[in-house]
Amino acid sequence: MVIHAQCYPCFLRQVLSVCDVLKAGEEEKKAVLVKVMRYLVGAPTDVPPPYLSREVYNIISKEFGVDDPYREIKKASNKMALRLYPELKKRVKESEDSLYEAVKVAIIGNIIDFGASQDFTLEDVDLFDDIPIAINHYPELKERLERAETVLYIGDNAGEVVFDRVLVEELVDMGKRVFFAVRSKPIINDATKEDAEEAGIDEFAEIVDSGSDAPGVVIDRVTERFKHLFRDADVVLSKGQGNFETLDDVPREIFFLLRAKCPVVAEKLGANIGDIIILRGGRVCHGLLL
Amino acid sequence: MVIHAQCYPCFLRQVLSVCDVLKAGEEEKKAVLVKVMRYLVGAPTDVPPPYLSREVYNIISKEFGVDDPYREIKKASNKMALRLYPELKKRVKESEDSLYEAVKVAIIGNIIDFGASQDFTLEDVDLFDDIPIAINHYPELKERLERAETVLYIGDNAGEVVFDRVLVEELVDMGKRVFFAVRSKPIINDATKEDAEEAGIDEFAEIVDSGSDAPGVVIDRVTERFKHLFRDADVVLSKGQGNFETLDDVPREIFFLLRAKCPVVAEKLGANIGDIIILRGGRVCHGLLL
Repeated sequence: MVIHAQCYPCFLRQVLSVCDVLKAGEEEKKAVLVKVMRYLVGAPTDVPPPYLSREVYNIISKEFGVDDPYREIKKASNKMALRLYPELKKRVKESEDSLYEAVKVAIIGNIIDFGASQDFTLEDVDLFDDIPIAINHYPELKERLERAETVLYIGDNAGEVVFDRVLVEELVDMGKRVFFAVRSKPIINDATKEDAEEAGIDEFAEIVDSGSDAPGVVIDRVTERFKHLFRDADVVLSKGQGNFETLDDVPREIFFLLRAKCPVVAEKLGANIGDIIILRGGRVCHGLLL
Repeated sequence: MVIHAQCYPCFLRQVLSVCDVLKAGEEEKKAVLVKVMRYLVGAPTDVPPPYLSREVYNIISKEFGVDDPYREIKKASNKMALRLYPELKKRVKESEDSLYEAVKVAIIGNIIDFGASQDFTLEDVDLFDDIPIAINHYPELKERLERAETVLYIGDNAGEVVFDRVLVEELVDMGKRVFFAVRSKPIINDATKEDAEEAGIDEFAEIVDSGSDAPGVVIDRVTERFKHLFRDADVVLSKGQGNFETLDDVPREIFFLLRAKCPVVAEKLGANIGDIIILRGGRVCHGLLL
């Protein structure tokens, strides 16, 4: 999907969020906002939002001389999620359809975002049962997975990766070979190799460097390894909004697991903000999904 | 008060609001956002927010060739408020302290803003009794008014002017001579001479052209008439956030009547968003308010 007009105020809001993490002063904030706007004025308007988020984030990193402002928050998110892990596993094991429950757990993890993550508790997990599933292509996903040998799982945020691990384990129990793709460089609170390892995913899946340094997958900049897996994997699972924004128009079948977090994505999906989405998507070619 | 970093995303959000009123398409919105950001990159960062809002609004007007996008909305707001007028008068007349009630009615009017105004009903007026008054300098205001002969009343929005009329009438009943200042040119939904006349204020007060074409009072660009009144009036009443943002630092005593509508103003006032403010303000000189 391409940038929407509503994304521009949101880019600036995101700048302020990073500034808050960096404890920037008022004048520093204004200076970096001006630099970001100077970039946005000349930036393309017909690319997915994460293409610009990447540059915006690089401007902030350079301005403050900090490569990975969310490092501590990511570590704390992973730790907090690992404390919940035994309970999440129990939830899945005790359910009638453990695959479905694991898919839902993975999406629950998608609400972990930014600094608020530390406050996430088991009660939040329980509350999740009441959130509407606006699009539910689980039957199609289940059918595809039953026939699949390989799964490419495109990760999203730190903390969330622990919830992803629950689904990855379930897939491995089903006999699938799982490849877990992460960002190549720190970008906001997105999961890198370090986070996937902290979550213990490397015990069950091969961690794959996607090549992306954006909060999504910039498909023409991915590694060769990712490109092959993306083409050849029997099932591709994509977590979160950023991956959806960059991959919704790519010509292959992808199962998107996410919560709709902004009005633009919610409207595109015909959903409300906060809704759970299990979407069989990807661009239709000649009337058929590849 | 000067622009806060948080104002920048808000400027862009305001652009989108005007675009919605103008029923602009997605590409038109992006084009005007880029123009606005190009302006903001070079704009001063140490002036009150309405100084920049004025330019932002001019860019949009020029882009779409529309001088007064809110004309119809303003007319509708005035009409709607006039329907409530008899009830508002009754409220004031039946109260124990009719001046206090009229002040509160005037502040109730401050919630009328943008397109939402049409939906405003008497129930909304009643709900107002439950809203906290975070700062209440009414006793000081009352004391000042009792001794005053002249009052400069700086208006804010269309629709709201009908609520202002109730307070203006109360002041006239108290024997005061009232001057009602309006914007010189249309800016967003701010009240111009036309709106004050539609509200019938000209029957009770002299309408004064402030010289301002910003959503506030740009003090070094006001008319001579306004300047004299501002200096010499016994009491100055200022309605709304925009006037507060531009006048809070001016060296004379001003009574600000408003609701805190954004986090920046709320924080500055030590209030919560939505709170009612009756503030004796203005810059302190040599330890005393002028």
